[in-house]
Amino acid sequence: MTKPLVVSLGDPAGIGPEIIAAAWLRREELDLPDFVVAGGGRIMATVIVSDGPPCLDGPDGAYRPGQPDRDGAAIASDSLKLATDLVKSGYCSALVTAPVSKANIAQIDPGFIGQTEFFADACGLDHHASVMMLAGPSLKTVPMTVHCAFADVPDLLTVELIVERCRIVARSLQVDFGIRDPHIAIAGLNPHAGEDGRMGSEEIEIIAPAIAQLRTEGVNASGPHPADTLFAPHKRGTYDVAIAMYHDQALVPLKALDFDEGVNVTLGLPIVRTSPDHGTAFDIAGKGIARPDAMIAAIRMAAEIAERRAAL
Amino acid sequence: MTKPLVVSLGDPAGIGPEIIAAAWLRREELDLPDFVVAGGGRIMATVIVSDGPPCLDGPDGAYRPGQPDRDGAAIASDSLKLATDLVKSGYCSALVTAPVSKANIAQIDPGFIGQTEFFADACGLDHHASVMMLAGPSLKTVPMTVHCAFADVPDLLTVELIVERCRIVARSLQVDFGIRDPHIAIAGLNPHAGEDGRMGSEEIEIIAPAIAQLRTEGVNASGPHPADTLFAPHKRGTYDVAIAMYHDQALVPLKALDFDEGVNVTLGLPIVRTSPDHGTAFDIAGKGIARPDAMIAAIRMAAEIAERRAAL
Repeated sequence: MTKPLVVSLGDPAGIGPEIIAAAWLRREELDLPDFVVAGGGRIMATVIVSDGPPCLDGPDGAYRPGQPDRDGAAIASDSLKLATDLVKSGYCSALVTAPVSKANIAQIDPGFIGQTEFFADACGLDHHASVMMLAGPSLKTVPMTVHCAFADVPDLLTVELIVERCRIVARSLQVDFGIRDPHIAIAGLNPHAGEDGRMGSEEIEIIAPAIAQLRTEGVNASGPHPADTLFAPHKRGTYDVAIAMYHDQALVPLKALDFDEGVNVTLGLPIVRTSPDHGTAFDIAGKGIARPDAMIAAIRMAAEIAERRAAL
Repeated sequence: MTKPLVVSLGDPAGIGPEIIAAAWLRREELDLPDFVVAGGGRIMATVIVSDGPPCLDGPDGAYRPGQPDRDGAAIASDSLKLATDLVKSGYCSALVTAPVSKANIAQIDPGFIGQTEFFADACGLDHHASVMMLAGPSLKTVPMTVHCAFADVPDLLTVELIVERCRIVARSLQVDFGIRDPHIAIAGLNPHAGEDGRMGSEEIEIIAPAIAQLRTEGVNASGPHPADTLFAPHKRGTYDVAIAMYHDQALVPLKALDFDEGVNVTLGLPIVRTSPDHGTAFDIAGKGIARPDAMIAAIRMAAEIAERRAAL
């Protein structure tokens, strides 16, 4: 594989530029794949004076860590679009995105919901077709609902949603992660998975029927499992991915166990896309204390997925 | 302190008897305090043929691991009552409870909700006055709501509930755990703690006002914190206890991090009560594979709390 990966700059006031630079500096030590940066030549040259990564012509500006503004949000948005075009057009093999501020980009582009949805749009797909998976050394997990109020979760969960998303997860674990018959462990919504309907009925009415449907399609799905034990050490080795019903059911254990190395990977897209699973961290940007571990893990995972797809 | 602790037997078909025996056998090696068992002399003599713990006259029967029935549920319930009486009357210093099956006890005693509520009743207190805290080597955490459906959580959360329970937590951390000015970090309910109301309003309407009220009372409370980062390694060192809004928000990280050593401690009672934070595990009972770590930690914590209270 000779095509490079492309890394989008993220919000230039966040820790994106410095963790990209740190990953670049360690690429030989860690045997990382080649990558280029989508724009940001002046910004990266300020972060890393010499021997920085190659930066393509594109959005750029001054480096002002910790000072997010509209200019920075525009650079983040334009770098994301440029990087996506480079992968869609086949010039680059995979896309790794540095963190952006959703709220800041939404101020200049009110239609912007998040990067996962952006890629579905960019690939001409329905938002349901792109699925966010969080992957760390301890755990892979996929939330069925994400950025919605806690109270809205029960109404958003449907048999169709769970079946459709778990199909995408199962297929991606086979194709992108090389797991022949992935075991998909599905959590309940209620405490103790509802205890046979004594505490909530979503397990009986929605989750169990979705699991039954998936199994008739040949997907190795199990559950509904009580969420509190599903993420315990003795259970984590028994499945390939844990399906969570809502944002924090997935993100709490992932960040408790794998905070510094969590990767966000978008499943179901024709392009390969990963990201470090942390935010812009404006409060520590430019101070030299941001850890590049998750960015490094994201670069490595993007390259591995691209290689597996290229070998098909 | 010369008074012994008392350990209730738990459901005799579960792992209670064997983890009590295992803790007893290691008491000298681990410098554990003296304890007696509330009943179960015949049962314990089957589990541990000689040199077992002293068992007080009380409920007893045959040892049938893995075969829960009404007789076993009655023994579990009676042992719990006997042990509670022994602490209330001052004969024993503290109570450690082995796991029971709530559903099985409820079949013979329909008013039985759970052990935490049982102790409130036994001490003549309102159920709200007893608060369940989970404590492990990595984390102490207290859920504000527990055994209710996910969909019922938002309506159950009130400013009064949070203030009342966090007051009890703050006082107990001072008195029982010897922390002079405990920092109580309170989680939000919604993803990212609602992002200023964009995803749910409970943070603005309920949780933030509760925190403000607690602070005017001198409680060192902070938040609402996004739950997904609150349990991450770099945050765990910044507080003494994390307050969760619902069962799995507390139990998922506790069991992900400290499954084998989690202790359930009931705060707010005139008596001292701890328990291993796991269930009866009927499926592995009697096989010699149950780990006694959490029972040992519960015995140690009960003794420490009793000593601190005795020294006041």
